[in-house]
Amino acid sequence: MIGIFDSGIGGLTVVREVLDKLPQYRIVYFGDTARTPYGTKSPKTIIDYAVEDTEFLIAQGAKIVIVACNSASSTAFEVLRERFSLPLFEVIQPAVEKALRVTRKQRVGVIGTRATVGSGIYERLLKERRPEIQVFSQACPLLVPLVEEGWLKRSETKRIVRKYLFPIIQKQVDTLVLGCTHYPLLKPIIQAKMGKRVAVIDSSQEVALWVKDYLENHPEIAASLTPSEGGEGHRFFVSDLTPTFEQIAKQFLGRPIRLELA
Amino acid sequence: MIGIFDSGIGGLTVVREVLDKLPQYRIVYFGDTARTPYGTKSPKTIIDYAVEDTEFLIAQGAKIVIVACNSASSTAFEVLRERFSLPLFEVIQPAVEKALRVTRKQRVGVIGTRATVGSGIYERLLKERRPEIQVFSQACPLLVPLVEEGWLKRSETKRIVRKYLFPIIQKQVDTLVLGCTHYPLLKPIIQAKMGKRVAVIDSSQEVALWVKDYLENHPEIAASLTPSEGGEGHRFFVSDLTPTFEQIAKQFLGRPIRLELA
Repeated sequence: MIGIFDSGIGGLTVVREVLDKLPQYRIVYFGDTARTPYGTKSPKTIIDYAVEDTEFLIAQGAKIVIVACNSASSTAFEVLRERFSLPLFEVIQPAVEKALRVTRKQRVGVIGTRATVGSGIYERLLKERRPEIQVFSQACPLLVPLVEEGWLKRSETKRIVRKYLFPIIQKQVDTLVLGCTHYPLLKPIIQAKMGKRVAVIDSSQEVALWVKDYLENHPEIAASLTPSEGGEGHRFFVSDLTPTFEQIAKQFLGRPIRLELA
Repeated sequence: MIGIFDSGIGGLTVVREVLDKLPQYRIVYFGDTARTPYGTKSPKTIIDYAVEDTEFLIAQGAKIVIVACNSASSTAFEVLRERFSLPLFEVIQPAVEKALRVTRKQRVGVIGTRATVGSGIYERLLKERRPEIQVFSQACPLLVPLVEEGWLKRSETKRIVRKYLFPIIQKQVDTLVLGCTHYPLLKPIIQAKMGKRVAVIDSSQEVALWVKDYLENHPEIAASLTPSEGGEGHRFFVSDLTPTFEQIAKQFLGRPIRLELA
């Protein structure tokens, strides 16, 4: 199975892309809804949680694991790679590569949780690859709760998005990285505020393309994955279950799913 | 020591009131910042966490425990009372008593997290005591993240507060219970929206008065508490520590404090 985990249900945006691009494999998802969110917590705590999440997915039969959470990708990925031997993917590098491909003015904006922005990982990776690039980052800690409430089109959400994006817009970036798996659900609002000429990069799409490419080049790993017959057999685990989580999960995935308590 | 716990740092509003009304005793606080918030989680998960929080405070020497979290008070208090033999206090009953004393029109509004409002506890307790009372409740799940961001006076916060309060204002209540320990920090905004004639009830103040009254009537328990010399000796534990938590804690308590990792 393809294992995917997130701090909560935001990682279902990655599931949606993986289902779209790799419909032939079964997915096992884990959303840590009992401890969500991660992005406001410390690196040490996020690392502890990410290790536990990965162990859970492996116990469920995952042969590869996607860290579908920018906060965990930015703070815990190195530790996961040392600790576990199976193929691991994270959501940051794919978005970085895409940003490098699309920016022309070499001015890139990054929005994310406080943990992700505080880690400075996007800026570091972008500058390692291209020292002359200018990166402007903005932590947007309220966007996760707004998305988890389903306030995707409310005027209050638009105002808060505008407030967060204002300093980045002033820097005249031509590319904006959505550095959080929740943000693709706000992409229409964000794109409208940034303007049509700014490329808005969704790491969910990029990581799914990376995994597809990896599996095409590693048939032995691809062969170890459980096939999905007719799009069936996926499992969605959460560490806590409420009616709200179920409702929002449906919104994220674009179809009803059955969440199971881990 | 007087033990006080909350899902995060919101319970420091209760600490502030206890320090004000009972300055002679030492306090030990626990904020479960590694798993905050509780209010969006399921009753079962909240109960598990509340039991662990209480055990931690007892291990630190607490002789009485205040559940300074409405979500835990509304869903876990019965279990705590069965499980533990020391004197336990919660934040709901004191606010209910106060509301019964001050309402004249018998029309009371209650705002809280989804867990608290979903439990229906305020309505049940108010109607048990006075069947003719009318209660209008509104879950306000975004107010906790707004307070934890320190957005106490922002226009975005005002707009969201207005949106949440609108249906309650329409019901012409004369009393509003702040059913969450975070909300006292928004009291100026809430009071302004409700109007001067509406009594806004802060459960932090009420529970501190209850504990004071209890200790005056139970000198044997009061004698078991550790005295505080010159307001010193309090301890503030959290399960996760970030610079943001420290900054907001200062805002909650109105003075700098040293948070310790539990």
